[in-house]
Amino acid sequence: MARTASLSGFPEWLPQERVVEQHVLDTLRRVFELHGFGSIETRAVETVGQLLRKGEIDKEVYGLSRLQDDDSAAKSDPNALALHFDLTVPFARYVVENAGYLAFPFRRYQMQKVWRGERPQEGRAREFTQADIDVVGDGELPFRYDVEIVLVIAEALSALPIPEFRLRVNNRKLSEGFYRGIGLEDTAGVLRSIDKLEKVGEAKVAELLRTELGATQEQAEAALKLATIQTTDTSFVEQVRALGVEHPLLEEGLTELEQVVAAASSRAPGKVVADLSIARGLDYYTGTVVETVLVGHEQLGSICSGGRYESLATKGNKTFPGVGLSIGVTRLVSRILSQEFAAASRSVPTAVLVALNDDDSWSSAQDVAAQLRARGIATEVAAKADKFGKQIKFADRRGIPFVWFTDAEGTHQVKDIRSGEQLEADPAVWTPSEEDLRPQVIARTAG
Amino acid sequence: MARTASLSGFPEWLPQERVVEQHVLDTLRRVFELHGFGSIETRAVETVGQLLRKGEIDKEVYGLSRLQDDDSAAKSDPNALALHFDLTVPFARYVVENAGYLAFPFRRYQMQKVWRGERPQEGRAREFTQADIDVVGDGELPFRYDVEIVLVIAEALSALPIPEFRLRVNNRKLSEGFYRGIGLEDTAGVLRSIDKLEKVGEAKVAELLRTELGATQEQAEAALKLATIQTTDTSFVEQVRALGVEHPLLEEGLTELEQVVAAASSRAPGKVVADLSIARGLDYYTGTVVETVLVGHEQLGSICSGGRYESLATKGNKTFPGVGLSIGVTRLVSRILSQEFAAASRSVPTAVLVALNDDDSWSSAQDVAAQLRARGIATEVAAKADKFGKQIKFADRRGIPFVWFTDAEGTHQVKDIRSGEQLEADPAVWTPSEEDLRPQVIARTAG
Repeated sequence: MARTASLSGFPEWLPQERVVEQHVLDTLRRVFELHGFGSIETRAVETVGQLLRKGEIDKEVYGLSRLQDDDSAAKSDPNALALHFDLTVPFARYVVENAGYLAFPFRRYQMQKVWRGERPQEGRAREFTQADIDVVGDGELPFRYDVEIVLVIAEALSALPIPEFRLRVNNRKLSEGFYRGIGLEDTAGVLRSIDKLEKVGEAKVAELLRTELGATQEQAEAALKLATIQTTDTSFVEQVRALGVEHPLLEEGLTELEQVVAAASSRAPGKVVADLSIARGLDYYTGTVVETVLVGHEQLGSICSGGRYESLATKGNKTFPGVGLSIGVTRLVSRILSQEFAAASRSVPTAVLVALNDDDSWSSAQDVAAQLRARGIATEVAAKADKFGKQIKFADRRGIPFVWFTDAEGTHQVKDIRSGEQLEADPAVWTPSEEDLRPQVIARTAG
Repeated sequence: MARTASLSGFPEWLPQERVVEQHVLDTLRRVFELHGFGSIETRAVETVGQLLRKGEIDKEVYGLSRLQDDDSAAKSDPNALALHFDLTVPFARYVVENAGYLAFPFRRYQMQKVWRGERPQEGRAREFTQADIDVVGDGELPFRYDVEIVLVIAEALSALPIPEFRLRVNNRKLSEGFYRGIGLEDTAGVLRSIDKLEKVGEAKVAELLRTELGATQEQAEAALKLATIQTTDTSFVEQVRALGVEHPLLEEGLTELEQVVAAASSRAPGKVVADLSIARGLDYYTGTVVETVLVGHEQLGSICSGGRYESLATKGNKTFPGVGLSIGVTRLVSRILSQEFAAASRSVPTAVLVALNDDDSWSSAQDVAAQLRARGIATEVAAKADKFGKQIKFADRRGIPFVWFTDAEGTHQVKDIRSGEQLEADPAVWTPSEEDLRPQVIARTAG
């Protein structure tokens, strides 16, 4: 961590840091697959037309052009290519293109890099890995998938070496119904203002609501009151009702959010809160919305966000509703490493170095290595018949815990170079402990 | 495979195809790690200056520019960003930047996408995945690593569901020493001509050597004679000696190539041939060079190439010699799928669908699912309490082999929906067979 990225916004990990990132990715994959999510990958590139399809976006985009071409004016062409800025837009396109080959409700996870053309001086990430899960239906998608996907993410995050987290869940129907109920019709505008609450504070948001959206003092106060409601159980329902606002959409939203919070409070206690300030700005959600904070690291921003789209994609008169969440893997891994929440026990997969007696013993050393590898033990063979002390030093420098010796009579010994203990061993049966077999990612008891 | 990529040159896989790709990547990772190679990833982006550092390159490059920027003329700027076209250039930069943090000889694998700005009409891949392994030394790197890396790749490829392959190995020192020995000093020029042998034939190459490199008829014939030598054992040494050419570099090359082929013929019999026509065109190798063909699919081109660089990278007066090989994963997976060398047993990770008796049983169904998942069995829960027939049909459509039922008395039964067999089962102990637990990639006996 003494290092900084050589190109601002493009982090790269050292081998021992990459072990931690791989552990995170492997863990997410395991949990997602246990819940029936299969993997897909989409190309890194979309057409500019596809990326800007929803109109106004707040993401910066990298356009592509062949270095050997002259026609650099092509950026305005909707068929020009650009790097995806998230995994939702490409997934929506993938679903439409392959609908005939997919079994709906289709559930997939996708762990890939995304790019944002941020200006380097802002010090923001320009390349980072996201891990998304989504369930998408053909025409309809039962609300239960919203409940399920929140539970899957809570389980996945719980399996990572990170401090306590909170999924903050709201429902767009609830907010929009409430705003309509108090007579504010530009619900998207209100949501965008409420989204700024944490950044600019209540007074400023009230002012925005009055000046930009023509809200009265009472309307602004009511909208802000709703946004302050936060409960770890379903008591938010009563608190909203106490505000005395009525609207059918509000009722729908209350019922939906109640289902999520009720299931979560029994199946993932303490991990999910109803938080009626969550708005998700410009994103086109239509029901459940989620943001996630690491407790004590709130300034890091959301580490997992998403929600329900009534129409993730459309094809002719078909719509594909979806619900999904996206984990910011690079953001999480950066924090794990910088705060030392966890570290790798070693940087190499290698458990054993087979030492050489002399230069001619390389082939028989390879035989020993092959026997160990056949049983899943990662093994290297020394390249040179240096003095044993030097070969041990080589293993030590690379972080390899065991060195294997075979004498001229064919007697095998294995030395744990940490303890110095050296024992006779048979390459057909000797096995290191579980902890030494592979690099371990060891979580510290961090707060 | 009835589909074609919606954007020419950017292949995307359906879920069941992705299972095959993941199997290939997982298999390569397992073998690489067993041999002590650790994972790293580099950013997708390099500066144009870095990418074009070696001068003349034959790869097309995609430049990047912020869509929201006007300054699209920046492509000529060496600090402009572009997508990497291979994993060697980024790896060399990574080694130089992080040399102080790496333990040499540093061995890593890297499985990432690379991009080439090919014109779409050529029907060539513009995005594809490579899997590279390299060993790099600080100042020096024993030749034994050349032998080792060929054996590792032979083992890795043998573990994949592909037909027979041949690593075709040569040595630049051997070729260059031979050319010098017969009086041809522009050895790079000769190598470039020899590299065209398979494409244009002997007569044309002889003409190129005479007209472009000023070779005599005898020199051209000698160079071509060398290129026809191909042996599965070390007998190539005698065949080269029989040509009566002498040069110290030739001797060095013969000794090196002999070591590779001797080790391979005993440890990976039939998989490696000495093939003295292998040249590797514009690439800057200095010793061992490798190309790999799938037997019977030679027109596919090389599926794994690489070799020894005396100076993979330099930093001040330090050089970092390396030896590495790169597998064309996308090329291989495309061929596996199009020729049906292998297929996935199902497209979803899910082994069990827990059916619902009624809408209120969702939570107890989740309890059953949690018990199964805790033992590594991927499980989904039905979202709706449809008639059992419909729930079974749902599982069938998604390719899930088992459906779990729990009656009102709490008796559990599990049905194999392929055979129709239904048995009582305990969620705390029931386990499907190894083959049903996860999607399997089943190799056909293909030629």
